[in-house]
Order: sequence, then structure tokens, then C-alpha cells
Amino acid sequence: MARPTPLSGFPEWLPDGRVVEQHVLDSLRRTFELHGFAGIETRAVEPLDQLLRKGETSKEVYVLRRLQEEGEEPAARGDRAEKQLGLHFDLTVPFARYVLENAGHLAFPFKRYQIQKVWRGERPQEGRFREFVQADIDVVGAGDLPYHYEVELPLVMAEALGELRPVGVPPVRILVNNRKVAEGFYRGLGLDDVEAVLRSIDKLDKVGPDEVARLLVTEAGATPEQAAACLELASISGTDVGVVERVRALAATHDASTDLLETGLEELGALVAAAAERAPGVVVADLKIARGLDYYTGSVYETVLVGHEHLGSICSGGRYDTLASDGANTYPGVGLSIGVSRLVSRLLSVGLVRATRAVPSAVLVAVTDEATRGDSDRVAAALRARGIPTDVAPTAAKFGKQIRFADRRGIPFVWFPAGVTADGTATTHQVKDIRSGDQVEADPATWEPPTEDLWATVVAGEQKG
Amino acid sequence: MARPTPLSGFPEWLPDGRVVEQHVLDSLRRTFELHGFAGIETRAVEPLDQLLRKGETSKEVYVLRRLQEEGEEPAARGDRAEKQLGLHFDLTVPFARYVLENAGHLAFPFKRYQIQKVWRGERPQEGRFREFVQADIDVVGAGDLPYHYEVELPLVMAEALGELRPVGVPPVRILVNNRKVAEGFYRGLGLDDVEAVLRSIDKLDKVGPDEVARLLVTEAGATPEQAAACLELASISGTDVGVVERVRALAATHDASTDLLETGLEELGALVAAAAERAPGVVVADLKIARGLDYYTGSVYETVLVGHEHLGSICSGGRYDTLASDGANTYPGVGLSIGVSRLVSRLLSVGLVRATRAVPSAVLVAVTDEATRGDSDRVAAALRARGIPTDVAPTAAKFGKQIRFADRRGIPFVWFPAGVTADGTATTHQVKDIRSGDQVEADPATWEPPTEDLWATVVAGEQKG
Repeated sequence: MARPTPLSGFPEWLPDGRVVEQHVLDSLRRTFELHGFAGIETRAVEPLDQLLRKGETSKEVYVLRRLQEEGEEPAARGDRAEKQLGLHFDLTVPFARYVLENAGHLAFPFKRYQIQKVWRGERPQEGRFREFVQADIDVVGAGDLPYHYEVELPLVMAEALGELRPVGVPPVRILVNNRKVAEGFYRGLGLDDVEAVLRSIDKLDKVGPDEVARLLVTEAGATPEQAAACLELASISGTDVGVVERVRALAATHDASTDLLETGLEELGALVAAAAERAPGVVVADLKIARGLDYYTGSVYETVLVGHEHLGSICSGGRYDTLASDGANTYPGVGLSIGVSRLVSRLLSVGLVRATRAVPSAVLVAVTDEATRGDSDRVAAALRARGIPTDVAPTAAKFGKQIRFADRRGIPFVWFPAGVTADGTATTHQVKDIRSGDQVEADPATWEPPTEDLWATVVAGEQKG
Repeated sequence: MARPTPLSGFPEWLPDGRVVEQHVLDSLRRTFELHGFAGIETRAVEPLDQLLRKGETSKEVYVLRRLQEEGEEPAARGDRAEKQLGLHFDLTVPFARYVLENAGHLAFPFKRYQIQKVWRGERPQEGRFREFVQADIDVVGAGDLPYHYEVELPLVMAEALGELRPVGVPPVRILVNNRKVAEGFYRGLGLDDVEAVLRSIDKLDKVGPDEVARLLVTEAGATPEQAAACLELASISGTDVGVVERVRALAATHDASTDLLETGLEELGALVAAAAERAPGVVVADLKIARGLDYYTGSVYETVLVGHEHLGSICSGGRYDTLASDGANTYPGVGLSIGVSRLVSRLLSVGLVRATRAVPSAVLVAVTDEATRGDSDRVAAALRARGIPTDVAPTAAKFGKQIRFADRRGIPFVWFPAGVTADGTATTHQVKDIRSGDQVEADPATWEPPTEDLWATVVAGEQKG
């Protein structure tokens, strides 16, 4: 077998990169659990008809086929034709299905986090990930869901991402808007094709205001004055409730006030006010956030890494009045999703963070000769029993070579077991910090490495540019 | 959308089942890391031609197809035709590919653990899992790999599974054999179609000795006497090095001693001796373990749950002289793989273990009225900042209803924030253990739940039978 080459779009990390990814995942999980979110995991596949209900993403679905199924008699496939299956492209569709399937066993409002891979069969030339990890939180209610969750969830994400700051992750800015504000304003202006307006506004960062104005006229049926008003709304942003007053004043100018707009402004104002107290400076009301054609009905969220805005949003989501419905019941929800692979890929490629070492071991126990490997194993067992990750040298090579073995892996300590030298002298247990060269006598039953050396972890790196 | 039904072969757990699975995964990971194994994760897909190199499993591969790719011009697919991709059916094939792809960046011997889902498109009527989690450890060398790793790896798995005993997982028995013993003995007898002999012996538990004797004659070309000798070898088992002497004596009786047999016996004897010291009673030499047609060349391992032997092996593996090869270098390895989903499924269905609760929260902070929700949020933030998982009540319902909300989720403590009653009386913070009904004054800055209540965890269940 020749040396294989990576598959474009399917990222994999070397062991030290995986230490970084694992740290991010562990840290996110801890924050989610501290906030009471229960972890679930869903299967990787869903029936194809369910995956295709969300029209826009259908072109990205990977469909599965059992290699040998063509050869089978239909009767061999079981009582009924098997459903066609595809890999999930997000964690929202599977979660909605899980809620419906298990509604009788869940307690609502149900708060869950879910950290899994998703797959999107995008065209290869676009250079985008085809397999990546998402970390989602959602709260779903049965019948109704109080507004305060629309305030709580982005703040949980702000905290989760903020917990990564000490290891070098840049600060985040969460941009929030409210669909009711946008829709209420557009309808107040007399523009009823709200989707067409949102679709045009969504292109603002890409094509600029002049082109969006043209699109609003040609695609959304706006007059030049209406288009200008829409762009004025999109230009409003800020971190305090003054934003709400500016939108209200703009609507008054254009005689565009509606009940829907007012409801949306009250919600947006409550979110901004709570965020100003609980995460000062993190949440910014930004009236141009449209979130494309998605099914959001209230708050919408996007998140950028400060200084890396061109990466796009690394954590997005919003409120949907109908996450799922089984006819009898409707389940509204609100949630956000972090693109973990995109985040980790950025952290690694720019060198924002680095792993302290690529292996878990804090200690390598040297082996004097193969006949006394058992002594080394016993030292390792004693250290592990006290929670110290420990490896044993692979061969009884010269100690210099064993030290280099540790050094190449970033293992900070090498342990030399007690024994008897060739001339019959008894030696004691010794442990060497191979970074400083300091070597001291030590007891396997009591010695501890410094806390910061105990496990491989992640620290801020020297940014590469 | 009607209520969806589960897909056969794709297990999913309710939140309390996921607590059990997560505990198993966390515990395995900790043991693997204490032993110095680095965690890696590989993509879910491999090129189909690589997956089909291992003939036996090819019928189980799920092949991927992008839903829209037929519609694309060949030119749109990029410079070269895309490789056909399939989902991996184990973690060994991807690991071998990862080692070759990254050999220049890895330090050998390379010890890795890998915990991921795998997929096998088995026929649905067999009622087997089509998606399941495996937890693998392997050590791979460049060029050579010392024998002591064949002793170490099953002992790591014994320890990893043993760590689950306190939560109700039954004790395990690891059955070991050595391919060199079997092959050396068969060749010493004059049987050269070793694969055919192993294939027959592998059926011993299913079809019994008489049928295996018949197969050995018809399929492996054995005389009745040779067949009887093979069955005699397969009947030998034991936990001490006496096993080695019994095999040696049997070989002498049949004049079947070979150098290969002797090498295998020395290895098997070393394994049994080390295991008797480090994990007494766990490792059993069992000369009938054949591991089918796999590519093992030395030690082979199977693991049963004591009292649940009919489940089959929950952790298997062995030594392979060629895990991977790129022409210039050969990478020998030894590893074992735990079938986590099968294990967890068994633990849950028989009720061997149970989660203490289905949500992470130890505390529910009650909400007196929506106007003072901010006070409840501040209590929750203070508790979370000290690592106490905390939820806040969804609505300002009557306290009785809020307590029932906690009770339904197994949250042990309900916190009543300090405030001012309708008649102007100031009240203090109070926390109630809803199991005992005890309610005490408490300070959000210092109160701690008992350690065993802090996180949802797993305890031994009342077995259902």
C-alpha cells in the first residue's frame, strides 16, 4: 500500500491537534452541563425523506447504500422495503426527530446538548469541510417555550466560548437580531415578500449596500425609498437598549410601526439588557443579521471571533416556533450550534493555541534491563493508581536513549527505578525533570508532579499570523 | 409529521441511558490515558478500495453517494474523479491508514486509543447493530514491536473494564491464546492447511466437538487421529503456567513439537505469568480461541462478562505482524477493541447499572415571580461558578409545581432565593433536599451539595434477570 494522502474536506488532527480539539470539547461539555443541559447522541443516519424536508440543504446529503444489497432477493430484506438512509447534515433535524420519537419519555422544557460529527456532500472544489464536529445546545418546550430562553441560550454560548479564552481562543462577539423586528418593519413599510427582503439583506456583507438596494427593488418589489429604509434598519447596531429606541424612531419616520415590530423590539431590548449585565460587551444587537432562509421566528444569532471576522460565524442559531410537530403537539425551540471543526482548524492553523504535549503521560519509567521490567511496571502501576498518567520505556536501551524517547513526546519526567547495580550497590528511586535536568530521590507511593504537568493540556500559542 | 419509530440496528439512548454510556466512555478514556495512550479520531469514511482489502467484511460496507452528484458535469467534480467512499466498519483499517499517512509525524512505538462509531450494513433480519461505538487501544511499532506489549494490552483492558465494576459491571474473563501455538501444533501433527483447521476449531462453541471433528476431516484433510489431537489441544485451558506444560506434554505424545510451537508456548507462558501477578484470575489461557480468519500472528484475545458468556466476546483483538506497510516500512501492532454499544445495551437492558438522574443539575433554583428571575439567575451563576451544575425553573409557577419539576428529573435540591414577601418581610436563601424534605438556610457563595450528589453518575442497578 502506497502512502495514502488526505481526503479533501475530511479533516483529521495529529495527536497534539487532537489534544486541542478534546480540550475544546471537554470544556464546552462542562459549561453545558453546569447549565443543566443533558447530553444526548443520535444515530448518524436519518431516513432520506426526513433529511430532504429542509429544501436548501438537500443537495448536500450523503446517501447510504449497502454494498451488497443489489444482490439480495427482495424477500431477504425483511418484511418491508428498507427506508433509504442518509447521513445527517446538522444536529437539528435528528434532534427534532428524537423529540417526537421519545416525547413520552422526556420532561419538557427539555434542555439538551449534542456534540457529534455531521456530513455535507458539498462540491469538492469549494474547499469546505465535508465532515465536521458540531456542538449544539437547544431548549425545546411542549406547546410553549418562555421567551427568557432566547436570552439564556446565547449567554450560555458566550460563557462556553469565554471559558476557552485562557488557552488562547480570541474573544467572541455574538450578533443578535429578532425576526419579528425585521418582519414587522418590512410589513410596516408595505413590503409583504418578507423572505425576498431577508434574502437580499443577507447578502449585505458580500455585495454591499448599492447592490442590495438594487436587489430589493428587482427581487423584493421595493421602491427605492423602501429599499433605502431597509438599508437604514440594517445599519443599526449597538450593545445597549439605545438600539431599540433608534429602530423605533426609524419606524416612526417611515410610518412603519406595527404590533409585530413592537413585540420584537421588546424582546430584543430584554435580550440586550440582560446581556449587558451578564456578559458585558459580548452581545451586540445588529439589525442586519438575517440568517438566510432558515425557519427562525424570533431571535437569531451569529458569532464571530474578534479579529477573525472574515472566518464568518462560528456559532449560529435562533428561535423556531415549530422545531417539531406530530399533529397533536407542537414543540417550539431555541438553540445555537458551534462549528467546532472550523474553530479548532483555525486555532491550529494560526497557532493561537498549542498542546503542552502530544501524549497523556507525565512520567516515563525507564527500564534498566528486560529482566527488571517488572520493577518498572510496578512503579508505573503505583503512579497510575494515584492518577498520574505514566508510560514505561519500550526497550531497555541506554538511559540517554530512553530520555530522548520521553523528550520527543514532551513527557516531562523520567523515573529511574530502584535496583542493584552491577557491582552490587543498591540504588534508590530517582525522578528527573528532563527540562531542567534536576534529579531527585522519590517514592512511587507519594511523589506528585506539579499540577500543571499532570495532564497534557492546552496553552495559548505564539500566533503565526 | 407522524411520530417516528426507531430504526432497527441503530441504537439510541434516552438521556439517562446516555449518562451510563458517557460514564463508560469517560472511565475507559481515563484508564487508557493513565497508561499513556494518546487519543486520536479518524474521519468516518475511507476509500472503498481500502475497505474492501479485508475480504470478509466487504459485504458489510455502507457506500456513500452525494445525492446530487449524478446531475453534475464530470468537469465540476474537480481535477480527478472522486474516489468512492464508504463508512469504516472498524477502527483498525482507519488506524492503519492514519499510521501510514502520518508516519513522519508520529513517534514509534505509537500507543493510541480511539473511541468512535463504526457502521456495518448487515442484513436487517439478523437483529444486529448497524451503528455502534467501539473503543480501541493499539500499540504499533516501526519495523519491530517488543513482545511485552502483547502482555500489557490485555491487562490495560482488564483494568479498564475492572474500573467499571463499582457501578455494577460484572467481572470479566480475558481468554488468551497464541497463533504460534496453534499453528506450530497443527504443523507438527502434519496438518498444513492451518486456516482450515482454525476455521473448524472456531466453530467449537456453536456446533460441538463431534461436528468439528467431522469438519476437520472433510475440510482440513485431517485423519480422525489428527482431528482428535486438535480437539484435545482445544480442550486445554487454565490460569497458570501449568497450561504450557500440558500443551508441551500433548505435543510430545503426538510427536508434534516444533520450534514455532515452542516459541508460542514461551510467549503464552510469559503472558499467563504476568497476568497472574498483575490481574489475578482475570486472564485464562484457552487453547480453543481461534479468532476466525483474521490476520493475527501471535497472541489473540477474547473477553466475556462472567455470568453473561452467551453475549459473546465484548473485547477482542490480537497481535498482527503487519498492521500496515508502505513498501519501505512495515508496522507491526497489537490491539484490542471493546464493543461499547453491545456492553452498554446489555447493562441497560438487564438493569445492571442505572444513572442517578437524567440531567446534570444538582440544584434547581426556584423563581418566585418573573420580575425577580434575575435574582434566581444570579444564585445559579454563583453556584455554577463553583462547579455546581444548576438549572433555573422555567416559569414562576407555584413552588409545589417547581419542586415536582425537579423531582421528575431527579434533581435533588431546590433553592429558594432570598427576597421580600408580599407583606414586606425579608426572607433568606433556603435550600431544600427534596428527598428528605430537609430545608436549611444557605449562602450561594459557600453552600455545597454532598459529593455523591454533585454530578449525575452511575450506580449498580437492581438486576432485572
